[in-house]
Amino acid sequence: MLYLGIDLGGTTIKAGIVDEEGKILHKASCVTELDRGCEAVFGDVAALAFRTLRDGACTMEEIASVGVGFPGIWDTEHNCVPYCSNLKWPDRFPLTEYLGNLLGKTVYAGNDASAAALAEAAAGASLGTRNSVLVTLGTGVGGGVILNGKLFSGSHGVTTEIGHMITVSGGELCTCGNRGCFECYASATALIREGCRLCEDKPDCALMQSVDGDLKQIEARTVIDLAKVGDPDCLELFEQYTERISEGLVSLINVYDPEVIVIGGGVSHAGAFLLEPLRQKTADKVYVKNMPFARIELAMLGNDAGIIGAAMLGRAL
Amino acid sequence: MLYLGIDLGGTTIKAGIVDEEGKILHKASCVTELDRGCEAVFGDVAALAFRTLRDGACTMEEIASVGVGFPGIWDTEHNCVPYCSNLKWPDRFPLTEYLGNLLGKTVYAGNDASAAALAEAAAGASLGTRNSVLVTLGTGVGGGVILNGKLFSGSHGVTTEIGHMITVSGGELCTCGNRGCFECYASATALIREGCRLCEDKPDCALMQSVDGDLKQIEARTVIDLAKVGDPDCLELFEQYTERISEGLVSLINVYDPEVIVIGGGVSHAGAFLLEPLRQKTADKVYVKNMPFARIELAMLGNDAGIIGAAMLGRAL
Repeated sequence: MLYLGIDLGGTTIKAGIVDEEGKILHKASCVTELDRGCEAVFGDVAALAFRTLRDGACTMEEIASVGVGFPGIWDTEHNCVPYCSNLKWPDRFPLTEYLGNLLGKTVYAGNDASAAALAEAAAGASLGTRNSVLVTLGTGVGGGVILNGKLFSGSHGVTTEIGHMITVSGGELCTCGNRGCFECYASATALIREGCRLCEDKPDCALMQSVDGDLKQIEARTVIDLAKVGDPDCLELFEQYTERISEGLVSLINVYDPEVIVIGGGVSHAGAFLLEPLRQKTADKVYVKNMPFARIELAMLGNDAGIIGAAMLGRAL
Repeated sequence: MLYLGIDLGGTTIKAGIVDEEGKILHKASCVTELDRGCEAVFGDVAALAFRTLRDGACTMEEIASVGVGFPGIWDTEHNCVPYCSNLKWPDRFPLTEYLGNLLGKTVYAGNDASAAALAEAAAGASLGTRNSVLVTLGTGVGGGVILNGKLFSGSHGVTTEIGHMITVSGGELCTCGNRGCFECYASATALIREGCRLCEDKPDCALMQSVDGDLKQIEARTVIDLAKVGDPDCLELFEQYTERISEGLVSLINVYDPEVIVIGGGVSHAGAFLLEPLRQKTADKVYVKNMPFARIELAMLGNDAGIIGAAMLGRAL
């Protein structure tokens, strides 16, 4: 059985034909022209879908279902997107019905980060597990939760907001208005903030020199690369960064007890340099020490996770 | 259909005949004589079960299933209790098989706090919901999670350790070895600790006077009662206490998005004086402010939750 997955972002629309095992057989993409309005964008989505099928030598009849991942909330009870300021859709937009009519096919919808979690469970780092959590360490911290082989999106369709667990009461101010959210300590943005503070405190540090005194050039990678080559200041920042992440991971283990926690997002490109301290620091903090607990793994699917996960929305694991 | 629920604690064994709606028709109890050893205790459990049925004018044939709640981990994969130091059972104890043979009936088992969550969902504060979280504020902080109408106990049978989410990174040292667990701020023990600190800082405070200078007499209730009558010091402690609890509740909302969070445990007897600030402070912190989110309610079943929840282990909601 084949599935069509559509990853609908604010910049790009991607579509792919995906098989039962979560393998992409053919994919294509186009630019999201938000300014043209919702109807035009969905016209583009439909055109991309048909083009992907044609170029992939596949017919709509061979497709079991179509799935769409998007950066917003899917309300499973009312079958609508309550609001989506990112994509400028009307409130309570009936995405699946609207696109279903254009394609003549059953359409499933879901949050894009949740879809990525589903992708990793279908064909990536959490393959073969029933309960897993994807944590994406990027500009913010997002992720998705798979329970009993299915996307878990709660009672109100508010997908799990892992990044807004409060892990440091009274800590850094978050974009959400609270203080001390996990995201304020575990995101790439957090590492950049700490890098900038380091440079302000120690204007002669290696990090400052590496960006020629221009703090705006500091990326998470800048700090990580200096830590990798043994710069003591950046090592200390990275040590504290992984410590804070492990506190969030142990909280996730204490509430979900998953088989696997998958670490994705831009920061995960640090690879074993990130993974090993996370594993060690999390193991040190697990509550029941003489029982097995979640493995921690790096995400495997990268940018394809969006297409694969969207495709899998119509398939139970 | 009727169920037999057994609440097996370190001090008391309780049993009750429970109907489909979670109502106790008859109940009985006896002392847990742990020193007599595991076999003798289960002999007592079986005897109590048969006595409860007899006195409740019910036969084993009328019972659909028997459920046992106990203070430990139930490993659903291996059908055993991996270890239970509280009750001095042998490792990997096959509780359901052992008791099933004694009773000639199918037996289900589960963690007692999880069972209490199931009870509230079957007949208490979360009746009629599919997703709910029970948070018990007592000596420690425990609780249980119901997802899709079923007890959720994770991949390794490690029931959800809500009390060990880290909410205050680097904070108070917890019995689990970590710092800043939710339990260190939300338990009765935490309120007592803060009360003692207040008395040390301000030996002439009303709290100190109320216990005649004997800090060992401070209970959570002592602080709460003084806060209720307007003592500024205890009001401040209680304000900070509810603030910290609300941070944990918002984390639970951000990961589980339940329909209801039920507040139980000894501290919940503070009633509306506790509930109203928790509702207000949690609402202020919810991530998606223009969508519905979990109601916060007080537990309704008190000490009967253990029997009712155990009975419901064999019944899906």
